[in-house]
Amino acid sequence: MTAHKKFEEITLRTEPIFKGKIISLQVDHVQLPNGETATREIVKHPGAVAVIPLLDDKMIVVEQYRKPLEKSQVEIPAGKLDAGEEPLQAALRELEEETGYRSEHVKHVSSFYTSPGFADEIIHLYVAEQLIKGEARPDEDEFLECEAITLEEAQQYIRDGRISDAKTIMAVYAWQLYRLTGQI
Amino acid sequence: MTAHKKFEEITLRTEPIFKGKIISLQVDHVQLPNGETATREIVKHPGAVAVIPLLDDKMIVVEQYRKPLEKSQVEIPAGKLDAGEEPLQAALRELEEETGYRSEHVKHVSSFYTSPGFADEIIHLYVAEQLIKGEARPDEDEFLECEAITLEEAQQYIRDGRISDAKTIMAVYAWQLYRLTGQI
Repeated sequence: MTAHKKFEEITLRTEPIFKGKIISLQVDHVQLPNGETATREIVKHPGAVAVIPLLDDKMIVVEQYRKPLEKSQVEIPAGKLDAGEEPLQAALRELEEETGYRSEHVKHVSSFYTSPGFADEIIHLYVAEQLIKGEARPDEDEFLECEAITLEEAQQYIRDGRISDAKTIMAVYAWQLYRLTGQI
Repeated sequence: MTAHKKFEEITLRTEPIFKGKIISLQVDHVQLPNGETATREIVKHPGAVAVIPLLDDKMIVVEQYRKPLEKSQVEIPAGKLDAGEEPLQAALRELEEETGYRSEHVKHVSSFYTSPGFADEIIHLYVAEQLIKGEARPDEDEFLECEAITLEEAQQYIRDGRISDAKTIMAVYAWQLYRLTGQI
């Protein structure tokens, strides 16, 4: 990706606020293009991966509790990048940990920022086909349940709000486009 | 949306960390389904709206600098909900402020969480058609530039990384599906 700098905001000072296990928070004091100053509240995140696992005419999804939403959600398998880990390796690792499936047919779909207004989190999204069944082994503080759903079920889950996160809705759109155009 | 509580994590204590102009941060100490405890770093956000503005065979997008990414990005018009504001009203307001366009033909596409692992931000996404040209009037600390792009240009922007945020990639997929199926 080429970095475009139109309307650049110059950092005058960075105020560290919090350093947690997963995210950190800082407030940047910036100079705007008109010379005025402003503050920007910025969450730093290590980045993440997500996988669209396709098994015959179904997609493998995982249900887990999302504390920020105070409800459980059905999502495609995903997880944070470990330090120094390549996104593709992370995607294969998360797929196997969360679902038990492995694949040698994995393709990059896109990489996207989830909340560019206040966070630098990027998700690298892959599609995995020709899945090989193994055994799931989630992290010790990770409680989740796998399910294989059809495209029609996925669309119904979106209408019901059981699927309601950006990456999974994007995955369902990408899967439908793949069906219609043969391209992903 | 029905709230599902599978694998619920019970809040033992909430530690407030930061309260900013836009986001706030807290650490929740939780009890997991197995009785163990853990911490969850949670960003609270007021929620946002985004609009897919379709004008003939083009979509109106805005380029702006995204400080968390340290680059400018091309995105669909979007913005935070004001206190007490209805999402549809916010969508019409942001569309007009950022692009100058108004519309009486606006439809809800979906509402999604951007980063359910660490944030409660929800974006309500609309499509706006039959646009009426007025005058843009962005907020005083908002510097942006509008452009009308074709579907093919949008897809090229994704490949180039000029479009690389979840809501805009989702918007391009939804627009392509709309072209192919007549439904959005």
